[in-house]
Amino acid sequence: MEDRRARMGLMAAQDAGDLGLAGLIRQHGPVEVWRYLRSGKGQTELARRAATIDTDALAHRTDAVGARFLIPGDDEWPPGLADLSWSEPVGRRGGEPIGLWVAGPLALNRLRPSLAMVGSRAATAYGEHVASDFGAGLAEAGCTTVSGGAYGIDACAHRGALAARGATVAVMACGLGRLYPPGNSALLEQIRRTGAVVSEYPPDQPPSRARFLVRNRLIAALAQATVVVEAGLRSGAQNTVSWTLSLQRPVLAVPGPVTSALSVTPHRLIRDAEAVLVSDVSEVLEMIRDPDPTRDDRRFQQPTLFDDLSEEQKRVQEALSARRGACVDELVVTTGLTVAAVLVCLTHLKQIGLAREPTPGMWLAGRERSRP
Amino acid sequence: MEDRRARMGLMAAQDAGDLGLAGLIRQHGPVEVWRYLRSGKGQTELARRAATIDTDALAHRTDAVGARFLIPGDDEWPPGLADLSWSEPVGRRGGEPIGLWVAGPLALNRLRPSLAMVGSRAATAYGEHVASDFGAGLAEAGCTTVSGGAYGIDACAHRGALAARGATVAVMACGLGRLYPPGNSALLEQIRRTGAVVSEYPPDQPPSRARFLVRNRLIAALAQATVVVEAGLRSGAQNTVSWTLSLQRPVLAVPGPVTSALSVTPHRLIRDAEAVLVSDVSEVLEMIRDPDPTRDDRRFQQPTLFDDLSEEQKRVQEALSARRGACVDELVVTTGLTVAAVLVCLTHLKQIGLAREPTPGMWLAGRERSRP
Repeated sequence: MEDRRARMGLMAAQDAGDLGLAGLIRQHGPVEVWRYLRSGKGQTELARRAATIDTDALAHRTDAVGARFLIPGDDEWPPGLADLSWSEPVGRRGGEPIGLWVAGPLALNRLRPSLAMVGSRAATAYGEHVASDFGAGLAEAGCTTVSGGAYGIDACAHRGALAARGATVAVMACGLGRLYPPGNSALLEQIRRTGAVVSEYPPDQPPSRARFLVRNRLIAALAQATVVVEAGLRSGAQNTVSWTLSLQRPVLAVPGPVTSALSVTPHRLIRDAEAVLVSDVSEVLEMIRDPDPTRDDRRFQQPTLFDDLSEEQKRVQEALSARRGACVDELVVTTGLTVAAVLVCLTHLKQIGLAREPTPGMWLAGRERSRP
Repeated sequence: MEDRRARMGLMAAQDAGDLGLAGLIRQHGPVEVWRYLRSGKGQTELARRAATIDTDALAHRTDAVGARFLIPGDDEWPPGLADLSWSEPVGRRGGEPIGLWVAGPLALNRLRPSLAMVGSRAATAYGEHVASDFGAGLAEAGCTTVSGGAYGIDACAHRGALAARGATVAVMACGLGRLYPPGNSALLEQIRRTGAVVSEYPPDQPPSRARFLVRNRLIAALAQATVVVEAGLRSGAQNTVSWTLSLQRPVLAVPGPVTSALSVTPHRLIRDAEAVLVSDVSEVLEMIRDPDPTRDDRRFQQPTLFDDLSEEQKRVQEALSARRGACVDELVVTTGLTVAAVLVCLTHLKQIGLAREPTPGMWLAGRERSRP
């Protein structure tokens, strides 16, 4: 209990993501650090702020706004956050949060499968359509959508999930006593009623630009991957992408018209191989189920499939290239099998997802992509 | 002269892209093969067709339609076609053409820089906009646009080039006496007047499905790279992509709305790393100027830039990652330099394209991408 109160006090005194404070807590424990800060011996801004904090009042206020306070080690503590303790800082901030204020029925230790969806507040109709569609499709697949509760892409992602009666989490850059932005209050109330709203700020703290940036690390860390739907050149989505990359989790990006300024960041991420292009929910789910974004290795990720092949099937499979099509006659020459044997093998390989025929008569290695 | 007539006769008798005939010509020369086919000794379909051909009439007809007949070794023979002699066949066809019928003032040995643009006949307004825009932008940069003269993307690519008074080449799947499709005859006549129309079929041969597919290898081989603008799941553009890959030349793809069926092939090509995403003309030109599509090696392609760096600049440059942002304080720790020295180095590295700052305060290796 003392530990919990100390963490609550430290969170009220700190700027979230303070790596120096995280180091002190790691070394001395929260109770010791809190005692020291309150002792009057410290001359830092942090100590001055700590002196003004009433943790009893904070705990009371937490109850009053219908929130619970989680700390690392609690059953409900989201397992994904631990990765923040080793991930590289972004903008000199980072680290696992000291605690979390949460409101809503969704248990934060049961978010998986989960996806963070981020993008522009000033989204286009196209982006809003895609975000809602993805939110709903992910919900139907049992996947939690994590976002920031902002206008535009965030709101559409949450709304899509809610429309399909799915789980969704909004991570706030302010306290849970004042959900932000006010224009989304009905949406945020609905998320609080059915999913979860989350914050590392005490109930009455207002949002700030710095808090949005450090908040983004929680969006990235609560999800298995981050998808960028629409984002302009200087979008905050880039910051969430940086956190996701620092957590070594996949970044996905939805392309759009090259004529739209809001396609610039998704397209740049894809060009720079920082993100994988996704065009529908099934492609997103593929990345969450298999968090290794090394696409070229995908055909080797199912060793049992290969082990079960007959010698002839293996010869045909090995003769196929993922890049360059081969016709049956070429495969006959390469494998030394008869035309009939090659055709039988190809049919089997196609059925189990090891061969595809994108153009009639032209065979490649890899899975046929099924599209609507 | 005999060689030229023999090639003309062989082209009239063959199905274009016949690898068996190409092998015979390589071994015995066109005159010998033509004589044998005309001798009455052969029992093949090719020999039967050869017996019916009047090469004098073909030459006369070539003049009558205002075309010239090129053969390998001619000054005007396009150098890019030679790569077809080693590239892998697609659909059992391939090979350097035996000759070419050409009409128009553009010399085929002076097409570079050149780009093939392919895509759907039933393009959307978006695709048509992008194709025209790219055609015009490439023309302004002195780049020749090669396409197939079809409706949709092809026509817009040609029109964009013509609108900017640029060079454009239409490769036909029929003889030059009957430009196809008839609905584009005004456009094709304009290309013949200012650029070039090209075919490997005698003047009066009609188009066929097989001819379109084998024609696509000439589109790919006449250009340094191929860009796909819009293409559905079963588009002929995929065939031109296969030819381009078999020539080991870059494939580029323009993304579009994921809600459009015509984005399926460009997006699949990008996902499968068969194509590089391009969103504007400058990105296309980058790929033509530097035909190595291995994007990760790009920063190492200008060794002189690195050689000219000071020791301090080298330390900062080496501390930067292409993927993960670093702030100045981190760079101070990594390099052991002062804040001021790091800042001076970063400014210089950014100027020469070795560092970028996509988010304020967060530095990465590589060139800042300039966007409209």
